[in-house]
Amino acid sequence: MLKRIRIVLVNTFHPGNIGSAARAMKVMGLTHLYLVAPQSFPDAEASAMAAGAEDILTQAIVVSTLEEAIGDCQHVVATSARPRSHQAPAMTPAECATFVSKQSEQDEIAIVFGRERSGLTSDEYALCNRHVFIPANPDYSILNMAAAVQIICYELYQRSLTEFYPVTQSEALPDAKEMSYFFDNMSVQLEQSGYFNGKPKAATLGKLRAYFQRNPPNISELGLLHGIMRRLTPQSKKVDKV
Amino acid sequence: MLKRIRIVLVNTFHPGNIGSAARAMKVMGLTHLYLVAPQSFPDAEASAMAAGAEDILTQAIVVSTLEEAIGDCQHVVATSARPRSHQAPAMTPAECATFVSKQSEQDEIAIVFGRERSGLTSDEYALCNRHVFIPANPDYSILNMAAAVQIICYELYQRSLTEFYPVTQSEALPDAKEMSYFFDNMSVQLEQSGYFNGKPKAATLGKLRAYFQRNPPNISELGLLHGIMRRLTPQSKKVDKV
Repeated sequence: MLKRIRIVLVNTFHPGNIGSAARAMKVMGLTHLYLVAPQSFPDAEASAMAAGAEDILTQAIVVSTLEEAIGDCQHVVATSARPRSHQAPAMTPAECATFVSKQSEQDEIAIVFGRERSGLTSDEYALCNRHVFIPANPDYSILNMAAAVQIICYELYQRSLTEFYPVTQSEALPDAKEMSYFFDNMSVQLEQSGYFNGKPKAATLGKLRAYFQRNPPNISELGLLHGIMRRLTPQSKKVDKV
Repeated sequence: MLKRIRIVLVNTFHPGNIGSAARAMKVMGLTHLYLVAPQSFPDAEASAMAAGAEDILTQAIVVSTLEEAIGDCQHVVATSARPRSHQAPAMTPAECATFVSKQSEQDEIAIVFGRERSGLTSDEYALCNRHVFIPANPDYSILNMAAAVQIICYELYQRSLTEFYPVTQSEALPDAKEMSYFFDNMSVQLEQSGYFNGKPKAATLGKLRAYFQRNPPNISELGLLHGIMRRLTPQSKKVDKV
């Protein structure tokens, strides 16, 4: 199960943390590291902290936006030390490992860690369709990033040892790019149909988006939903009828 | 349960590791730290790595032998990254947490971490009556000490939570009658909009219905979805605009 999981670090400030995260991953059998706009990478401090996990750093994929890092993933799990809910249902690390072990037979999975101080932005959260938080001391919940990576990877590794899930051939899910296209199209169609008249557009769109993020349709269901949106505007109907 | 658990670090070489361990403990609600013959303590590097957990360092008890650190404990758990058995039965971190949570109502418990490079000596192992090991990548199982402390304390803390905190008061769901009305209306609107042209109506409707049944929207989301369906037909739009 571990081969289809990637760890994504967003805009990491201290390069040493990248090295520590690589070590935390490797010790638990994970190998795919994505770095979104790291402050400094490659960096001697990252290599020093990796201590034998330099291969993870060498193979790391550096991209400039979170979209690029997760575009081909069916499941994108945001991490937070707080039970902040956003739209996504929060899982414990153990629940996350159970979820991932079930899905990773057929799907690509990203687990996303935000900036050391400020975490993920709202826009970044909105790209995630799951959410994991690590319950910790409410009076001192400043888990450092490498420690958070360690705990999540520890749970994933334990689950990979102890459980075997036969492949359940459920229907394929769209990846993040396809969902993003659906949302963009939905927004345009709703706008043109006058749906937002008298409604706060951003909030309304956010709620609809959250509903579909939380409940990912499979590929054929997505096609049907696309079709509904297309029917909202006369132009699209004409095109449809040709 | 956490009050009767102490973390014991034996002969720690890098003072920074003492600080990191203190932080790992505090973030998971543990407070009692015993240091057996540390190489250097107090030490500026330990304080720097503690990052807000200096109180754990200030209260730490420094002794010169493991016997002194564990003398008043009923249960002494040795840790190792390898499933080395010695005389003590090996537990996973989760089993260790279960064991500790049962015993800590009445007993004092020590969890002992050995030297960074060489672990515990045979004599020290012999002082322990339990053994926990952290399963890890067999090709790279060099879990650093703070990471090991983090994982063990994480499991202890999760076990100590008497109840899982609910993340959000999830919004009320519609009842079957309301869902049924939504489906009837969806069917009519899709029909009138020409959505079923060229599609097998019953099967298509069945798939959409199955998607929404599987993923029940909450009441406000249902309202938004209703609105989308209403926008599909010009009649409804007119009514809407009145």
